[in-house]
Amino acid sequence: MKLELLQHTGSFKPRGAFNRILAAQAGGDPAPARAGVIAASGGNHGAAVAFAARALGIAAEIYVPEATPAAKRARIESYGAHLVAVGADYAAALAACRARQAETGALDVHAYDDPDVIAGQGTAGRAFEQDAPDLTHVLVAAGGGGLLAGVAAWYSGGAQVIGVEPEACPTLHAARAAGRPVPVQTGGIAADSLGARQAGANVFPIVAAHAAALVLVPDAAIEVARRLLWDRIRVLAEPGGATALAALLCGAFVPPEGARVGVLVCGGNTGSLPE
Amino acid sequence: MKLELLQHTGSFKPRGAFNRILAAQAGGDPAPARAGVIAASGGNHGAAVAFAARALGIAAEIYVPEATPAAKRARIESYGAHLVAVGADYAAALAACRARQAETGALDVHAYDDPDVIAGQGTAGRAFEQDAPDLTHVLVAAGGGGLLAGVAAWYSGGAQVIGVEPEACPTLHAARAAGRPVPVQTGGIAADSLGARQAGANVFPIVAAHAAALVLVPDAAIEVARRLLWDRIRVLAEPGGATALAALLCGAFVPPEGARVGVLVCGGNTGSLPE
Repeated sequence: MKLELLQHTGSFKPRGAFNRILAAQAGGDPAPARAGVIAASGGNHGAAVAFAARALGIAAEIYVPEATPAAKRARIESYGAHLVAVGADYAAALAACRARQAETGALDVHAYDDPDVIAGQGTAGRAFEQDAPDLTHVLVAAGGGGLLAGVAAWYSGGAQVIGVEPEACPTLHAARAAGRPVPVQTGGIAADSLGARQAGANVFPIVAAHAAALVLVPDAAIEVARRLLWDRIRVLAEPGGATALAALLCGAFVPPEGARVGVLVCGGNTGSLPE
Repeated sequence: MKLELLQHTGSFKPRGAFNRILAAQAGGDPAPARAGVIAASGGNHGAAVAFAARALGIAAEIYVPEATPAAKRARIESYGAHLVAVGADYAAALAACRARQAETGALDVHAYDDPDVIAGQGTAGRAFEQDAPDLTHVLVAAGGGGLLAGVAAWYSGGAQVIGVEPEACPTLHAARAAGRPVPVQTGGIAADSLGARQAGANVFPIVAAHAAALVLVPDAAIEVARRLLWDRIRVLAEPGGATALAALLCGAFVPPEGARVGVLVCGGNTGSLPE
């Protein structure tokens, strides 16, 4: 298991946030220094962008939906970001964020559908391969798919990367069925972190080219995985963070004889212990 | 930080349990195979002995005080051990355990005051030094003191090892003041794992010879440490597991200029998130 929930801000998300901002600065983009960075997020990405911006000494503005819990808002603000809560869902917050970005000229850090964000998330695959070079399969949860795309691209030609989605958030399954990203309804216990309503235009072809399989898991299996992680190894994951393991437990992914399976536990921003 | 709470059974305790049983078997002691192992415990040690016994294919009998919570009992039984709940506190359970041991001839695995248990716990120091060879100071919580004794003996002549006790469980401080182990009152939020009422006769001279310092921390600092571990790195420790870090946060231990400080997070068997 790769415990990405132990990263700063409680998820893998700083990988992509740092890579996006640092790549822009390295490329001579004056926006971060001049106008800071801006992002829309349901929570984890916003905290990561705020954290990265503070570490790099630049301003950050984070747009979240109005329903975002107080604890997530407080965390984002604790990193010194300016927080704006607006709209009924992520899409509405994103629209407001884009309008604001057009005014300020800040560097936009998309939560998943940006090549530098995807490449940054992919460093989780690089680190996993360094830690465990003999894996044959790697299970990765997918919401918008930035982490899955990055990790699948990293392992291309090596370990097989399997994307895992909750049955209640079948964003990439819907895109695969349609041959392109399409809007879907999302819900269930992992929607706070995996509930992106449409796969990214940059994400989708990378996943299609490099992920070996996509599987679906029921919410009940996610709860079982979450309880097992806590009961047996004292790792407290959020539902989205336990989703990859759920595929192994419920049989959505059955490892072939001799497989060595890696599981990415991607986030721990939860407010409760498993029941 | 050395995250010993991620070990099987949620604490460092299997190190000592395995070493005690395997050392007896290696020395030709027929007791484990003939009559199994027996131990008294407030919880973490009992789970570790049960886990080790199952892994080694031998029977285990675990004595716990009657006040032991159902969750801890269930965990011990989940490893296949025979559980006996008896007496008002650890001392009473230990007395019953010893009487039973005299009848059955099982191998007694003391929770802290056995040379092989102490040496086993010391392997946590060995692993920490391998992971982080340049530490100058290592903070370790102490209850009965088995972990502190083992780690301090390991580092002898190397990094300075500082023992940390809750103000409400000053077992080793009392022994040091008296020049020998003496009974003390124990209480407070970490008493379930650090509440041994008397330092061990084997533990005390090892700590006196090899620990660089002993410090006390208030319960409030333990709560702050527990919250920080959860808020910032998504590590959910029990109060005893956060006690070593508390010394750094409240100033009970002030690192000298240039110090590189290691903190052992020793257990995660908690039923609640920090407030």
